[in-house]
Amino acid sequence: MVTNAAAPSNGYVQPEVDIPALTELLDGEYAEIRALVRTNLVTYASVLEEAESLGFDEFREWVRELVVTMAATGQTGMGFPEEYGGGGDVGASIAAFETLAFGDLSVLVKVGVQFGLFGGALLQLGTERHHKAYLPDVISGKLMGCFAMTETGHGSNVQALGTVATYDAESQEFVITTPGDQARKDYIGNAARHARLAVVFAQLELDGGRSEGVHAFVVPIRVDGEVAPGVRIEDDGRKMGLNGVDNGRIWFDGVRVPREALLNRFADVSPEGTYTSSIESPNRRFFTMLGTLVQGRVSVGGGAVNASKVALAIATKYAARRRQFEADAEAGEQLLLDYGMHQRRLLPLLAHTYALHFAQDVVRTQLHEVFSGIKDDEQARRELESRAAGTKALATWHATRTIQECREACGGAGYLAVNRFAALKADSDIFTTFEGDNHVLLQLVAKGLLTHYASEFEDMDQLGMVRFVTGLAVETVIERTSAHKLLERVRDLLPGGDDWDQEAGLLDTRYQLAMLRYREEHMLAGVARRLKRGVEDQKVHPGTVFSRVQDHVIAVARAHMERLVLEAFADKLRAMPDSDNKVALGLLCDLFALTTIEADRAWFMEHGRLTVQRSKAISREVNDLCRKIRPIAVDLVDAWDIPSEMLRSPDLIG
Amino acid sequence: MVTNAAAPSNGYVQPEVDIPALTELLDGEYAEIRALVRTNLVTYASVLEEAESLGFDEFREWVRELVVTMAATGQTGMGFPEEYGGGGDVGASIAAFETLAFGDLSVLVKVGVQFGLFGGALLQLGTERHHKAYLPDVISGKLMGCFAMTETGHGSNVQALGTVATYDAESQEFVITTPGDQARKDYIGNAARHARLAVVFAQLELDGGRSEGVHAFVVPIRVDGEVAPGVRIEDDGRKMGLNGVDNGRIWFDGVRVPREALLNRFADVSPEGTYTSSIESPNRRFFTMLGTLVQGRVSVGGGAVNASKVALAIATKYAARRRQFEADAEAGEQLLLDYGMHQRRLLPLLAHTYALHFAQDVVRTQLHEVFSGIKDDEQARRELESRAAGTKALATWHATRTIQECREACGGAGYLAVNRFAALKADSDIFTTFEGDNHVLLQLVAKGLLTHYASEFEDMDQLGMVRFVTGLAVETVIERTSAHKLLERVRDLLPGGDDWDQEAGLLDTRYQLAMLRYREEHMLAGVARRLKRGVEDQKVHPGTVFSRVQDHVIAVARAHMERLVLEAFADKLRAMPDSDNKVALGLLCDLFALTTIEADRAWFMEHGRLTVQRSKAISREVNDLCRKIRPIAVDLVDAWDIPSEMLRSPDLIG
Repeated sequence: MVTNAAAPSNGYVQPEVDIPALTELLDGEYAEIRALVRTNLVTYASVLEEAESLGFDEFREWVRELVVTMAATGQTGMGFPEEYGGGGDVGASIAAFETLAFGDLSVLVKVGVQFGLFGGALLQLGTERHHKAYLPDVISGKLMGCFAMTETGHGSNVQALGTVATYDAESQEFVITTPGDQARKDYIGNAARHARLAVVFAQLELDGGRSEGVHAFVVPIRVDGEVAPGVRIEDDGRKMGLNGVDNGRIWFDGVRVPREALLNRFADVSPEGTYTSSIESPNRRFFTMLGTLVQGRVSVGGGAVNASKVALAIATKYAARRRQFEADAEAGEQLLLDYGMHQRRLLPLLAHTYALHFAQDVVRTQLHEVFSGIKDDEQARRELESRAAGTKALATWHATRTIQECREACGGAGYLAVNRFAALKADSDIFTTFEGDNHVLLQLVAKGLLTHYASEFEDMDQLGMVRFVTGLAVETVIERTSAHKLLERVRDLLPGGDDWDQEAGLLDTRYQLAMLRYREEHMLAGVARRLKRGVEDQKVHPGTVFSRVQDHVIAVARAHMERLVLEAFADKLRAMPDSDNKVALGLLCDLFALTTIEADRAWFMEHGRLTVQRSKAISREVNDLCRKIRPIAVDLVDAWDIPSEMLRSPDLIG
Repeated sequence: MVTNAAAPSNGYVQPEVDIPALTELLDGEYAEIRALVRTNLVTYASVLEEAESLGFDEFREWVRELVVTMAATGQTGMGFPEEYGGGGDVGASIAAFETLAFGDLSVLVKVGVQFGLFGGALLQLGTERHHKAYLPDVISGKLMGCFAMTETGHGSNVQALGTVATYDAESQEFVITTPGDQARKDYIGNAARHARLAVVFAQLELDGGRSEGVHAFVVPIRVDGEVAPGVRIEDDGRKMGLNGVDNGRIWFDGVRVPREALLNRFADVSPEGTYTSSIESPNRRFFTMLGTLVQGRVSVGGGAVNASKVALAIATKYAARRRQFEADAEAGEQLLLDYGMHQRRLLPLLAHTYALHFAQDVVRTQLHEVFSGIKDDEQARRELESRAAGTKALATWHATRTIQECREACGGAGYLAVNRFAALKADSDIFTTFEGDNHVLLQLVAKGLLTHYASEFEDMDQLGMVRFVTGLAVETVIERTSAHKLLERVRDLLPGGDDWDQEAGLLDTRYQLAMLRYREEHMLAGVARRLKRGVEDQKVHPGTVFSRVQDHVIAVARAHMERLVLEAFADKLRAMPDSDNKVALGLLCDLFALTTIEADRAWFMEHGRLTVQRSKAISREVNDLCRKIRPIAVDLVDAWDIPSEMLRSPDLIG
């Protein structure tokens, strides 16, 4: 008997997805604000076409108008205090931003620049005098501003910025100066056209040139539509994408602002020029100020997850209707999604997108709790910063990879602008390097792990980190990275005792988690040992040691984040009542876990945690999971409830 | 003693690159035509900026002008016979195309459409009457045309095209008809604006509807600047990139062309309507016609290699001047290229680019020999088709990956259009799916391997292939895939006897080649066994079996191609006299080989060819090679001799 059975056997019952229930689960507590954003997206859906048809300048103006229009609906001000016209709900502001990522990403980034970076800096770094003066007009979009941190010569290493703010006690003013072209502010969103104010990050210098490190100042850069005296602005010009956002460069030539222009939540300068700060260590002060950036990272990560969804929704729906080559004479050409390779290309990305969605839920909740004062201690803040950095890195790389794979999976039609991928790919590309370069962010994650979020953690640069770790006894490191304790726990928990890694079921979440946790802790101890050995035994310079160990540093951060993502997914599942949806999500969770292990199976074999037979079994199981998910794949992308206007793609799914 | 030694020790002497000599080696026998193209590129370098500043229509017109202007220099006609005004040198035409890929890729693709696809079809599928009538004006660019194969409903599966050409014996004309929107020609370069003629692929129907399969016809689609009667053309509109090329859709409504419009090199229809062909099997005939497309694939592969070079040259030079974070107090901030992770990101891509360059040399030479009649037997043609398909797939995926990694390695500046990556990324994106989707191409490679290029090879669709393999005795398959014979040979060749895979030096090219060959042959036997087992033992439908085994099919093709690439590099090295340049290329070859093994080290461990210790040793060796290549990295990209005008990037390397 010849069977054409695509579905697997052995008693497994294929779940039927309840799409509305799944959407409700995914939208979660922020269903209301997400609904508002979806409505706004549909109302202004034409922007996706206008991004192509309007000229360079016209499109920038149109995006600005849209942002102001959306602001009037309350969508963009959720994160600000109610007393200034905001929504007073940080979590909701992130959820709104995430949902907005279904649409044109210039609109998204313009919103991020205006309300997240610029408005966020005023809110987080400023005090009441700044809030009262600016926030109402910022929230309405009437007062546009920019966040002038990055310089041409310094992106990631913000501590080394060149712009100087010298205090002149006589006039009680700060004098802002750009000492050279490497210190010009660069890539600054809203700078080229729309910003009237800039929050400028500069080295604060007091009498006699004593530097207090980087601080933020409110500086008018346009007055009555003209560039302010002493300010020079240059347009960054056309970019790969996001051409609805006006990025530019700014130079300051002795621009004077009043003493009150210093955003003085963490430090202040008295009229006489005396510096005071509630935070003693200059490094700690700097990183505390920088810590307020965390909201931007959480936003970008969430936006990246939803941009991935748009690509996957199109590619999955296309693959479920497009036929290519004959499978057998009776059936005619075979659907793309019935090809094993096509399943392998798309469905693990679908699983990773779901996993990252739930991981984003966790980091958004943490952010909300810290910034709403629900749980705002030092440890919580540090863990949030680390988690936000790591989630942003994973989610944005995932978006780049997913959008690329989906474009290729749609062939030539995927290349036409009308079919959405062109803008999606070009606009999202910068996500991996803005709001923190992903590699630098993963180093931040690793630093937290290596120092166990020590109080000194935030103060340390990479050399400080090497010296810190080198100063620990090896035993301390190993104690902290508790791989051996973990093994004891696992032994008790999983079937198979000492052979848990060979006996436990591949689909046992405890096994999957134990594997990811073992990898993380083993890698962490390894990095610590390498750092110590390099500096102590081989007497190599800490900078050189760091350079040599850097790929391991990045790897451990990634391993840590993947473990957190799986935990987020597993926790979500555990909390669900039994249902077909739970079964469906269980398949996705298994697929996420096993493809994550599979991708690094060489490491697991190298470290004795995977036999050859089991490694091959994982690959077979992944293929089996793909076949099980295939019949519900379209339902699973439909559950994201992306307005069809956002998918466009008449040639693919129209 | 604290050393800051970046360079490794143990007697290794760092080579000094002789850049001009290396350029000469790379340019090879086609230095002259490459020099002409470089000159033309520099003369019209402004097109890189005009691509941004000109409007949609203006840019298309400008690209057309450029193509015609370049044609007048002889650069684009090298592949045509001298009697019609061409250069009579197929290899040189590919070399010219490759070099052109340093510049704007719309110009490149317009050249490919006009002279490669359209002109190539006339030359390869037509006979003297077509050559005389068209080639002189095609070569000069006076007569623009298009290659109308792909339809909305059928891209990869060309055999199932819907367009029909019915022979009307009474009028001695073919009637070309588009039966529905799925059969409209789509994504056709030159169609939206400039083409006067189209080479249309259509199902040839003779009296009573008998179909003879897909054939090509010359059809006028514009007359005196107007769309011809019965023809409908629609603009494909804006694309992700390549907006200097006017892609469009074409419908035919009973368009009549004379009997002589059939490109009749392989088949003809007599005035009375009798069909004749020198090739008996309809399938074979079809694939023979399709085989003439091989030139396009070789061209795109070579173009992709050179597009990768542009990205790598920028990112490498940038990394050698950009500093970030302090390494130690004395040295100030550290150069990006001195970071271990940054070396890991860029230098393996550099090695793979060099490797693909030499692999491209081999396939270009094969193409030249086959198409110049120097070595034109059936076996040579089949091997060329397979090699062209595989090289194109590897090179274009490499380009996508390399350009992405290089953009990220240049941070925010890499996102500005002026810094080259925007166009490079958007324009090259389609390379992975046009001129044959990469996955489909790799299946073609696998089919050749599985059938050992049997005479039936070209006739087979995927089901035919499954049936063919299923029909073989397992022993035959294993005999053909000579893994066991290979092992005997290796034992004799390499130190260590039976333990060659543990004893041979990692940097021994024979070891590296043996590893890649073993993988390929083992995978091949595995695929054959899986196909047989599925159909014979498990009685599953061949289509389903194919779907399940498809990822292995793709994997074996990739393994085969990687082995060929390493062989090409190793052969090149072997032929070089001793010199520092040979040492430098040797480092790159080792880095290519070991990163290739490293990337699939899980497979090698799973199949008993790599111990855990040795696997880790390979990763260490890769890092060591990166450190050795780091001091010569800039020289190695300079040797590509990319005109600095093509790199642009004032913010990065200006």
